[in-house]
This record gives sequence, C-alpha cells and structure tokens, in this order.
Amino acid sequence: MAIKITGTGSFIPQSIERNEDFHEHQFLNTDGSRIDYSNEVIVEKFKAITGIVERRYADEQLTSSDLGFLAAQKAIDDADIDMETIDYIICAHNFGDVKHNTVQSDILPCLASRIKHRLRIKNPKCVAYDILFGCPGWVEGVIQAQAFIKAGMAKRCLVIGSETLSRVVDKHDRDSMIYSDGAGATIIEATDGDDGILAHETASFTYEEAYYLFFGKSNNKEDVSDTRYIKMHGRKIYEFALTNVAQAMKDCLDKSGIDISEVKKVLIHQANEKMDEAIIKRFYRLYKSKAPEGIMPMSIHKLGNSSVATVPTLFDLIRNNKLDNHKINKGDVIIFASVGAGMHINAIVYRY
Amino acid sequence: MAIKITGTGSFIPQSIERNEDFHEHQFLNTDGSRIDYSNEVIVEKFKAITGIVERRYADEQLTSSDLGFLAAQKAIDDADIDMETIDYIICAHNFGDVKHNTVQSDILPCLASRIKHRLRIKNPKCVAYDILFGCPGWVEGVIQAQAFIKAGMAKRCLVIGSETLSRVVDKHDRDSMIYSDGAGATIIEATDGDDGILAHETASFTYEEAYYLFFGKSNNKEDVSDTRYIKMHGRKIYEFALTNVAQAMKDCLDKSGIDISEVKKVLIHQANEKMDEAIIKRFYRLYKSKAPEGIMPMSIHKLGNSSVATVPTLFDLIRNNKLDNHKINKGDVIIFASVGAGMHINAIVYRY
Repeated sequence: MAIKITGTGSFIPQSIERNEDFHEHQFLNTDGSRIDYSNEVIVEKFKAITGIVERRYADEQLTSSDLGFLAAQKAIDDADIDMETIDYIICAHNFGDVKHNTVQSDILPCLASRIKHRLRIKNPKCVAYDILFGCPGWVEGVIQAQAFIKAGMAKRCLVIGSETLSRVVDKHDRDSMIYSDGAGATIIEATDGDDGILAHETASFTYEEAYYLFFGKSNNKEDVSDTRYIKMHGRKIYEFALTNVAQAMKDCLDKSGIDISEVKKVLIHQANEKMDEAIIKRFYRLYKSKAPEGIMPMSIHKLGNSSVATVPTLFDLIRNNKLDNHKINKGDVIIFASVGAGMHINAIVYRY
Repeated sequence: MAIKITGTGSFIPQSIERNEDFHEHQFLNTDGSRIDYSNEVIVEKFKAITGIVERRYADEQLTSSDLGFLAAQKAIDDADIDMETIDYIICAHNFGDVKHNTVQSDILPCLASRIKHRLRIKNPKCVAYDILFGCPGWVEGVIQAQAFIKAGMAKRCLVIGSETLSRVVDKHDRDSMIYSDGAGATIIEATDGDDGILAHETASFTYEEAYYLFFGKSNNKEDVSDTRYIKMHGRKIYEFALTNVAQAMKDCLDKSGIDISEVKKVLIHQANEKMDEAIIKRFYRLYKSKAPEGIMPMSIHKLGNSSVATVPTLFDLIRNNKLDNHKINKGDVIIFASVGAGMHINAIVYRY
C-alpha cells in the first residue's frame, strides 16, 4: 500500500498588499520607541531579508474557513473523487475565523465542521476536526491522515491548511509585513504501489522555545486595550530553525533510505527567504554536499507567509505549472518541511 | 496488544458558583425581551432539567492550559511513568486560553505546547498538538492516540481535555448557568493483553447541525460590541442527541462484539441530566431492554458542564472512589460517549 496525495487545490486571495502600502505605517520598536530610520529603509531591509515584495489579504467578507472551503473544493475536483467517500477532514489553522475588524477567534464549531457544511457533505462518518500545530499544521495533518490510514481507520482524507494572518497583525510591528492569508488543501489516500509518503518526522520543542511565537500586546504603548496580536522573537526563531529544521529533514530522509542525491525538490514553509536558504544550505552541509540549483521553489516573494497554507499552496502551484521553472515529475523524491509556533518542526519524504 | 488507559488525573477548580449566585442576573430571551418570570423560577426550572445545583469556575489567574497542566501532572503520577517517554500530548479544548476579563482566545502556541512546557518535558520527539472537536474532544483524542499506537507511531500518549467555559458565557443567557471549568487527563498506552479499547465510533453531523452550538451575540441588545459568546440551540441539540448518540453507542457496542448485558457503566458527557437520561433510555431501548440502575454515573449536579473535561473527570473520580456508589472493577466493560459542538458524536467501548 502507498499513501499518496491524489489531489491538490489552493485559494490565493486576489487583494495584493505591496511593500509600498506600508510606507505610511507607524512602525515602533517593541519598547514603543520610534525606529531611527525611514519607512522606506525599513521596508527595503525587510525585503532584503524575507524576500517578500507583496502579500495577499483575504477580502473583508471572507474568513479562514471560507478560504479553506474554496481550496478544498479544488482539491476534491482535482482528485476527481466522490466527496461522500472522504473519511476525515482535517483542518489546520492558528487563529480560527477572525472576522474583518474584530479581535475574537471564532472556533466554535471547529473550522473543519464549517468546511464540511459548506461542501454539503452528508456522510456523518466523515470525521471533521481541527488541528492546532503552528505553521507546520498542514504537514502534521498529512502525517495524522497517514496514521488513520495505517491504523485501518480511513482510506481517504481531506487535509486543509487555512489562515488569515492579516486579521491578527500589530500594524506597529515591522513583522506585520511578513504575514498573509491563504489556503491549501489536499486529498490523501491509500493506493497501490510503493511510492507516496516514504517517511515522516515530527518534533515539538517546548522546553525553552514554546513562546518564540506568541500572542502579545501592540508595540504601540498608547494602545491600552487587552487586544493581542501575533508576535515573534525573530532572531531566536532564525537560529533555532537553522539547526533543528535541517536536522529533522536529515532524520526524515535517513529514515526513508533515500540518498540525498535523489531529492529533486524541497518544499519548505515560506517563512523568510534568507532563513529558508540558510536551512537548505545547512541541510546539504549535513551530507557534506551543496544545495543544487533550483532545489527550493519559493512563493514568498509574491505571497508572503500564510502559515499553514504555504506548503500545500506551493505544491499546488508547481503541479499546475504556475511556478516558473519548477516541475515535479513522476518518480521524483520531494521533501515537505515546516517550522512554526509551538515550536514545532516536521518533514515528509515523498515519492511523487 | 491492548490499548489501555493506565493513568488518570483531573483538576476541579475550588471556586463554587451556586445556582443562587445567579439570582441577581438579568436574564433575557434571545430577542432581548425580558423573561416573564422571576430568576428564582428560572433557576429552579434550569435545575429540574439539567440537574445542575452548582458548578466550578477557575481562579482568575488560571487559564485553560493551567488547568490542563494540573490534571496532566496527576495522570502522569497515577500512571507512574517517566514523562520523557510520552510520544504524544493531545490537548482538546474549544476556546483556548481566555484570560479573566478578556475576550480573545489565545491559542498561539497551542495549549499542548504550553502544557508540555510547564511539565518540563525535554524530549522534542514528544509531539504536542491541540484538537478542536467540541465537547467530544477528549474522547476523540483517545481515538487519535489509539490510531498513532496502531500505526506504530506511538506507544504512550497523554490525552487532555481542558476548558474554561466561564470565560465565554453571556451573562444575559440562561444557558450560561450550564457551563463550568475543569480539566481531565489520561495516559493511553500499548500494553499486553486483550482488554482496553475494544471499539470506537465517531460521527460529525454538519449538514444541518453544524451551528447548533455557535459563537454568537449577547441576548442583551444594548451590548453593541462585537463580543461573542458560547450559544446553543438547546431544543435542537436535545432532539439530535437523543437519536444520534444512542445510535452511535449502539454501533460502537455492536462493533465490539460485547453483549449489552455486559456493560457495567456508561460514562457520558455531562451536558444535561434529562438529556443524558433520555439518551441512555433510548440506547437500551435499541436493545429492547431497560437501563439498569446505577449504569450512568453523573457529576453534573456539582460540577456542571465543563465540556471536554467531563468524561475524563468522571472516570478519574470513579477510579479514585470519589463518586458515591460507583465503582469500576477489573474486567468491567464501560462505554465512554460524548456529543457536542460540530456537531460531533463519539463513543468508545472499553474493558477495564
């Protein structure tokens, strides 16, 4: 038996927020003090590190579960399956449905229930739940789908990553420019053959690292409300990820028995271009080799960091020939890898 | 191989909120109109239906992850295991950490990460994630732990249900009296033998039922804020649960091959005494028999409905001889069953 991704879909919001759109923001340091240089300089430095030129924001009337539904529909169509045969709907996110201009996360009912409702699936035996696992939530959802299939509890699962980070950003924080909205969805199923998922690896670093990404107050100390926003200790995350993501990817690849030279693409969470490049470099260095040209497709320049949505969206773009110069051919070995709030890390070695 | 619960723990907050404490509340109908009878009458009717006399509220300085941590510590002690050997920490909840007197759910990082952090577990291979699955979240967490064990991905899991519903209630809604705070935790592991989990059943009813429990506005129409609260369509839930929970329990028991006469206890989600009694009656009627005396232990009278925490707390109380006249002996067959937001239903047939 092979466990394969038989369909993909993504929803990329239409509304583009360009770097220049941040030129009028009032960015502040975490202590509330003014930043010594101009917004133009701030934005240029930001672009040089993250690679982000523009990002997408969901339309005001849409929430995360809407994005997830739109991506799920496409994945179901792509897999060409009867949706009533889906055994599990697993939805990964971090903040639930946050309506435009509100601050509460709405997670009652869970987003998977909302998506199943909108898909008009009738079968009550299709179990719909949400997983909270930081940005690696979609990859972890695939690993959980694999567990259900291996345990004989499922044959076909819909795994979705959906997020609207634009709704939880502190406009006074430079990091707000990183975040974007989007959704990716995939159908995972048991099929014949020996390709598909070859190995997986997951780790949760919580001893020192649990709050590297957290929900915190605005940098604007004049904001005396209780409202909290997505916040990160960027430097700590960078150093943490460099070591631990590369190692997790190596552990995963070694488990699979595949040689590093066979790896054709690494689809890594689109967190920050410089960080992702450093991780890949470190990963290959663990094998005393150099990262091949074109090994790491990137969507961050145009799409920003949409958390759980980046990896399935990237995969969907490549499969649909929408990412220049990147192709995945039958038999290619690819690695999915992610890192995020928790701090969680995971990887999957997959033969396409 | 058997998959068994080898340790339990619960955290019941000390602060008691009695029915009389609601006598000064201003209860309103959903349309904002005044209710025609006195609060004393409202409270008496409430008690007659739900069975609730008092409920527990968490201390102001505690959040849901604190409660979960306190219950988890006890479960680990009870199982007498090295916590560094835990492969998964699965935390079920519905609203994350909601600080006293605030309205935002804090789910970044996920609560399982927070709990692992507070337990001071170092092992990064211990995967910590949250599941959102309404009140049946703890039962579903056990089913997921079982999947990981069966798939060879885990040997030992910590499954927690923790909730502070007191932080999300609309004080103008009579249903606010139902909700309480608490946490239950269990260690699930692969052991020798053929007892433990014998069968499970899960269903997600979303076609018509997805929003029977939802996040909605206050009954007080003078509250023009965006703040939303836990809300339910009680009558619809009652009718839904009566049919579908009884049927899911039957499906589960039939799968297990156990005769109805062998069932010694049914530990059902403490949602509403009259509803739970009606479900049990219906369940036995499906076997053309009558519910035996003492089959259904209840904690709702003193503890209210603490969502994901009710079933593991009930189990922990019985194991520790803290629930009058209820005992579970080695070899006894028990059923865990739950129903809640989603609308999700699940059941486990378990030989103790």
